[in-house]
Parts: sequence; structure tokens; C-alpha cells
Amino acid sequence: MKRVLLTGGSGFIGRHAIAPLLESGYEVHAVGSRATGAADVFWHTANLLEETRRESLLAEVKASHLLHFAWYAEHGKFWTAMENVTWVKASLDLMLSFAKLGGQRYVGAGTCAEYDWTGGGLLGAATPLRPATLYGASKHALQTMQSSIATQLSISFAWGRIFHLYGEGETPQRFIPSLIGALHRGQPARMTHGRQVRDFLHVEDVARAFVTLLDSKVEKPVNIGSGKGVELLEVAQLLAKLMDRADLLRVGELKPTANDPPELVADIHELNSLGFHPRYSLEAGLARTIRTESPQVS
Amino acid sequence: MKRVLLTGGSGFIGRHAIAPLLESGYEVHAVGSRATGAADVFWHTANLLEETRRESLLAEVKASHLLHFAWYAEHGKFWTAMENVTWVKASLDLMLSFAKLGGQRYVGAGTCAEYDWTGGGLLGAATPLRPATLYGASKHALQTMQSSIATQLSISFAWGRIFHLYGEGETPQRFIPSLIGALHRGQPARMTHGRQVRDFLHVEDVARAFVTLLDSKVEKPVNIGSGKGVELLEVAQLLAKLMDRADLLRVGELKPTANDPPELVADIHELNSLGFHPRYSLEAGLARTIRTESPQVS
Repeated sequence: MKRVLLTGGSGFIGRHAIAPLLESGYEVHAVGSRATGAADVFWHTANLLEETRRESLLAEVKASHLLHFAWYAEHGKFWTAMENVTWVKASLDLMLSFAKLGGQRYVGAGTCAEYDWTGGGLLGAATPLRPATLYGASKHALQTMQSSIATQLSISFAWGRIFHLYGEGETPQRFIPSLIGALHRGQPARMTHGRQVRDFLHVEDVARAFVTLLDSKVEKPVNIGSGKGVELLEVAQLLAKLMDRADLLRVGELKPTANDPPELVADIHELNSLGFHPRYSLEAGLARTIRTESPQVS
Repeated sequence: MKRVLLTGGSGFIGRHAIAPLLESGYEVHAVGSRATGAADVFWHTANLLEETRRESLLAEVKASHLLHFAWYAEHGKFWTAMENVTWVKASLDLMLSFAKLGGQRYVGAGTCAEYDWTGGGLLGAATPLRPATLYGASKHALQTMQSSIATQLSISFAWGRIFHLYGEGETPQRFIPSLIGALHRGQPARMTHGRQVRDFLHVEDVARAFVTLLDSKVEKPVNIGSGKGVELLEVAQLLAKLMDRADLLRVGELKPTANDPPELVADIHELNSLGFHPRYSLEAGLARTIRTESPQVS
């Protein structure tokens, strides 16, 4: 029997991983800050940063598979926060205990911020891994070590590098939810010039991609993205069209942040070779996000 | 006043760092498993893996500088040992506490095993960082994170990547001491084909290079090596000549290990730009090693 421990189970990606995990035949044990309504899931409350509780949870579940999304993710702070260090240490211990208890396959969540962003072109196996932030450095350090640890402990390990994602449950201050919120309230939707090219994948597709990766035998980093670059301006215009409020779009009224490269697009040939294909086009994903997110009218 | 906390102070490199640190005007606080006889050094006994003791030591010393050599180093085991993970975690905490207590400059000890060894040529800034062992992965993960952490906490950070070193105090089973031991005892000195090219630097020069790095304002990884490749066979022949026992050399009687690349030579232009130059030529260093090491005649 496949029994998976899903960490960050009530987080942005984790909550969307439950359905595809159940579909793939896993007995799902989720750890998260709050239980969702999903039936057929074993919910556990545990602070994974507390060693004793983490160990007892692992011993209790004795999972064959581990899908690890839990991390510090506070908007605007996570790039530089020392909590990244805390999560690296806890994640290292998580793998050691998982392996010791007979765990077989571990999949971790990385980030496009592990790559050098200064070079341009598709980001992939040929791109130098030169993270510019503590978040990217921490994720990359963890992948570097866990890849070696997995070899030493004879467990199977893969790593999904997440690009830009969106959908139900995203932090309201981020690009897409903030635009939807403003347009929904009938307020001006301010943005930068919007010429930044990003690789967007709907969060349900991101979660499904991770489950596909977990089910595979691949033992290396795999980019989780759409493989298609799109300008933020195009995303904003699509949203405005779908919400019929193109009049409210205010392009160029915000200054881009310092850490804002011109282009971040994933090389997804590894992901494709797993047989994974996104279910949502950008337009369909945005339409769904507008439906599922119901911002309060202020 | 410059006050340095030297970890691994009784280890292979650390013990040789004390004299150059004193010469450079530091108040030297050394932590190690055993005190050496050096005058003018404050010796501390502490297990750096014990959080409470580590914290109290840092608070007691309140160093402005930290030179961190302590690590798990058991011959034949350190490449794959889980102790590497323990030392990564302890070293992360060491930097956080050091910074919190007002520390200013931190220099860590890395390894040529952080580099991809499959490419050939001088190893340096253009070489991919693709460690093949848990030891190399752990050191590289630590450098990746500490570089970011130092930026966030506004402390100055550098990292010395050590190549091959030799001299007084080296583990007896390693290449040079084992040859000296055999020749000294009048026994056959067995070795591989010896065509592997390595970059050897005498341990006193290695330690002096680290003190030069500590005294500089450089904030990046710097290779610590001679910049000159030499075949192991040439090293062995030099030793045999110096000991007048060329008759005992048995070339090709041992099989090279799996993890034994043809060539590992450091690009040392960064180290040179600090004004550092080795004091020992290979011949002078080997002669000194033969004098300072006095293996028991079995």
C-alpha cells in the first residue's frame, strides 16, 4: 500500500494535492495548520519545527511516501527571513527520520529562485544554480544535501522546482489576486509596466505535477511550470477582459521591485517526459480563479 | 581589538592557524578537543554540537572574527557520514549566534569536493558546483546558505575551498603520511599508478592562507591551493628520494578508488590577489613533513 505523508497540507499547493493523491491510490495523511473538509484523509496536527512532535508523527504514520510542501511563506518576508534556515534544518531531520522508519520515496518542493536569473533563456539543467536570495539559497542547499543523503540512505528522492503559480488560495497581496480584488471592487488596478515574462501554471496543475513526480521513479530536480512565457501585461489584460473591467487597468503606475528579472520561463522537457500535461490553459485557469476567489467588496 | 574564535583549534589545520593569527594581532580564542602548548591563546573546551554549550561559549568570547574549521573528519568515513548533516546544522546556528552577538567577519572552510570533478582544467569560478559526495554537498550547501545569511545579517563572510594538503598532524592512513611511515619503517611503500594530478599545499601555508583571507575584505569563495598540479607518482618519488629509500616504492600495487578523478588543480588567482604566496615549495614542505612526523617504527 502507498501511504503518503503530505506536509503543508492546508497550504496553497498542499490543499490541492489531496485530490490527485487520493486519485492515485494513496492513503493520505496530511499535516497542516487547519484541516480541510476532504473526506478519506487522515488529518494530523503537528508543528514540524518541534522535533519531538515531528518524530512522533513520523513514527505514527510510517509513510512509504513523503511529499513535503511545508515552509515559511509569509508574503514579502519569505525571500529574506531567517525562518528559511529553520526550515532547512527541520527538513533535513524530516528526511533522516523518514528514511530510518522505512520510508521509500521523498519529494521536496524547490523553486525557480534556485537558478541564476541573470542569463535569460529557458531555465533548466544547463542554467547555473546561483540563488540571489536566502529563500532560493535555502531551497537549493536543501536539494543539494537531500540528494546526497537519499543516496546514502538508499531512498528515492526527487525535487520539483516551482515557477509562478496562481489559483484558489493564493496570498491576496500577490499579483493575480490583487488585480482580481481591485477589479472586483471596481477600483483602479495598478501595476508595473508588465513587460516581465513569467511562466504561470494553475495551482491545481502544480499539485498534480508533484503527484505525477511522486509516482514516478525520477530522481533529480524537475521544473514544475507551463514552459510558456507570458508577459504580466497579457495576464492583466486577460483578467480585465474576463471581468469586463479593462477600463480599470492602470499600467505603469507601480515601480518594479529590485529583484524582478525580465524573463523566467521553465524548461519542462523533464516534466513532459513524465507524461504530465496541464489541464488549464492560462485563460481557463484565470477564469477559474476569478470564480473560485470571492474577494470581499470593501 | 580583533578577537577571533577559532574552531577546530586542535585539528589538522586549526592548530597551524594559531601562530599566524597571533602574528596578525588577534586575541586568539581556540576551541578544540585538546589544548596545545601555544602561549597567549585562550583555550576553551566545548562540544560545538551541543547547543547550550555553543551558545554560552559564543556569549563568553564575544568574538569579532570567527574562523570555523571544526567538522567531522574521520578518515575513510567523512565522505558519506551523516555527521556532515549534523555539522551543517550546527554551523548554521554558529553563524546566527555569532552575528547576533555583534560578530563582524566569519570565514568558513570549504572543499574542492564542492566542484564538479568530471570536467578537467583548473577548478574555479567557471566550474559548476556539483558535489558528488555528501561531504562536498554539505560544505557547498553551507556556503550557499551562509553567503545569503551573512548578507541578511550584515556580517562579512568568506569561504576557503581547500584542495590537497599535507604536513604535521595529518591522519596517518592518508597518502603522504602512509608513504613516509612505510619508508621510515623500511617496508614496501605500495601505491596506485600515481598518474592522478593533485594540488598540494603544506598545511602551514593552508592555515596562513585562511588567516590572510580572514584579514581581507573579500566576500566570496576563494580556492586554497598551490595552483600547481603534480602527479602523485612525483610526490612519492620526491619522498623516496628525500628519505633515500627509492628501492621501497611499489608503484601500481594498489587499485585507485572509485572517487578518484584524473586531475584536481585550483585556480588560485583570487588567493594571489590577496598577496598570499606559499612559503613551502613541495620539496621543502615534504622535507619538513618528514622531519616533523616521527612515525613509530613497528
